[in-house]
Amino acid sequence: MTAAREIRLKSRPSGLPVADNFELATVDLPAPAAGEVQVKNLWMTVDPYMRGRMNDAKSYVPPFQLGKALEGGAVGEVTASGDGGFKPGDLVQSNFGWREGFNAPAAQVQKLDTNGLPAQAFLGAAGMPGLTAYVGLLKIAALKEGDVVFVSGAAGAVGSMVAQIAKAKGHTVIGSAGGPEKIAFLKEIGVDHTIDYKAEKDLTAALLRAAPDGIDVYFDNVGGDHLVAALNAARPFGRFALCGAISMYNATELPPGPPNLMLMVGKQLRMEGFIVSSSWDMMPAFHRDLSAWVKEGKVKWKETVFEGIEKAPDAFVGLFKGENLGKMLVKLG
Amino acid sequence: MTAAREIRLKSRPSGLPVADNFELATVDLPAPAAGEVQVKNLWMTVDPYMRGRMNDAKSYVPPFQLGKALEGGAVGEVTASGDGGFKPGDLVQSNFGWREGFNAPAAQVQKLDTNGLPAQAFLGAAGMPGLTAYVGLLKIAALKEGDVVFVSGAAGAVGSMVAQIAKAKGHTVIGSAGGPEKIAFLKEIGVDHTIDYKAEKDLTAALLRAAPDGIDVYFDNVGGDHLVAALNAARPFGRFALCGAISMYNATELPPGPPNLMLMVGKQLRMEGFIVSSSWDMMPAFHRDLSAWVKEGKVKWKETVFEGIEKAPDAFVGLFKGENLGKMLVKLG
Repeated sequence: MTAAREIRLKSRPSGLPVADNFELATVDLPAPAAGEVQVKNLWMTVDPYMRGRMNDAKSYVPPFQLGKALEGGAVGEVTASGDGGFKPGDLVQSNFGWREGFNAPAAQVQKLDTNGLPAQAFLGAAGMPGLTAYVGLLKIAALKEGDVVFVSGAAGAVGSMVAQIAKAKGHTVIGSAGGPEKIAFLKEIGVDHTIDYKAEKDLTAALLRAAPDGIDVYFDNVGGDHLVAALNAARPFGRFALCGAISMYNATELPPGPPNLMLMVGKQLRMEGFIVSSSWDMMPAFHRDLSAWVKEGKVKWKETVFEGIEKAPDAFVGLFKGENLGKMLVKLG
Repeated sequence: MTAAREIRLKSRPSGLPVADNFELATVDLPAPAAGEVQVKNLWMTVDPYMRGRMNDAKSYVPPFQLGKALEGGAVGEVTASGDGGFKPGDLVQSNFGWREGFNAPAAQVQKLDTNGLPAQAFLGAAGMPGLTAYVGLLKIAALKEGDVVFVSGAAGAVGSMVAQIAKAKGHTVIGSAGGPEKIAFLKEIGVDHTIDYKAEKDLTAALLRAAPDGIDVYFDNVGGDHLVAALNAARPFGRFALCGAISMYNATELPPGPPNLMLMVGKQLRMEGFIVSSSWDMMPAFHRDLSAWVKEGKVKWKETVFEGIEKAPDAFVGLFKGENLGKMLVKLG
């Protein structure tokens, strides 16, 4: 019997989540049954999309349940196994985040071959956020030679990968983020033109200073004013990949959409929303490209780490306050 | 020397155009010079996109000039020719609308082979509006088997062709229009479910009654509330062809965009604006399909006809008041 702490959803947030929406509980894990494994989590991820699952609304993933542990990506180590395919010490990836340990059917965890990368990279640059950047740029926005690329939230887990993949492929990249520390990071990863949106009154003007001839691709992580600016600055036949609008995840009522949306007609723009899980099939190609880029020094990443399961709610809320530089992670092991 | 009347842009409209924005003038046409033709127009078209050209704003077509005759599609008859390729009596198509007659270089008019259709059909169902419907559905929205299609402005020149092309290809079609006369027309052309938007408070509810399982394709002619409803009712991987937003052409300041735009992410929707002139290459395929559909009785059209060049401004303004059923035309000859 092993004790493991976990974070449960106590009540559904209205707007930005607060401490009281979460609850820390301790469960006892029995020895794993036949066909099960017991895992001690080393790292868990917090991601903006989880905010949507905290609402009681139909979406592409079902809502989290009140009184139950939250879920999300995690990497951990098998500590006991009732399944012939796993042995103690195996590194595994699962969706049983937000808890220090768990028992689960062996089919619900995947062995992780890190290929020399740190294990937690598979929750970020080499995992879902990295693949999101890759799919959004290459498949959804159909990046092509000569495109000028604009990415918002460019210092985040997804955005920083968008910027670096576009740079690795030889594009001019404009990245926006909030505050000098993030802007310094964008310069470090080779972003050509940076926009500190917190220091700008008129995002369209700032974007047109960075890209006087306009942009061809916009990778949208934030929505709101950034989307308005991108529509204004788009060149004919521009393509927008809509990945999520962090500016709106905590909105208690929907803010108006971009008043200039109909620029899409005259400029013949394409805008497409996407969810990375529709494109898991691109993971092998992504890992192939990524390992080449890492070797060539073209892709780096940053992590913002909170320690201990009890800090997971703070880490999560910090995402919406812009507290993370690169991937926001919680270290458990 | 022949006298011909024409409509000039006297002042730029603010909001809905008024009579005083236009000026009727008479010009004398000399005999055509060598290489020129003289044409007496029989029909001219008024189309919503012309409103944009009345503003002094950069767009995909240059603005109309003050004090000069307006421009637009017209069909006419050659009355005198200084070019070996044309002789009096030839039927021609040109962009020299808004005038009773004109002289022009022969290269700026095209001979028209009506193939048994009425000449004015080439300003509507068989012309630019018909091709717009064809391109928007087949290329931009990538219509595929089983798609449920929603079209707004469905009794208009473009919308009624969208509805009929989708029906001819075997789709379930929902069409919206304003008022009982237009709704009766939609039923006549085989629209499966009609929405009289003037009689509905909640367009989303009306659309979901018509399409309880949602829509796959939305052909947008109007923007505004219709776009909001289409986003709400869209099924995963829905595709929206944005053709123009008649609800906004006269807006003096931009109304807010759809507050639910970010549904595009979770539903993985694609939205694409287009201009028919980027797809002239599809005209032969369109004419081939159209002549088959006309023969099979699958495509009909209606015309709303104003008579006389002096009525052209009324016809044009009537477009924005919903006065047309099918193609709005001005008969000149």
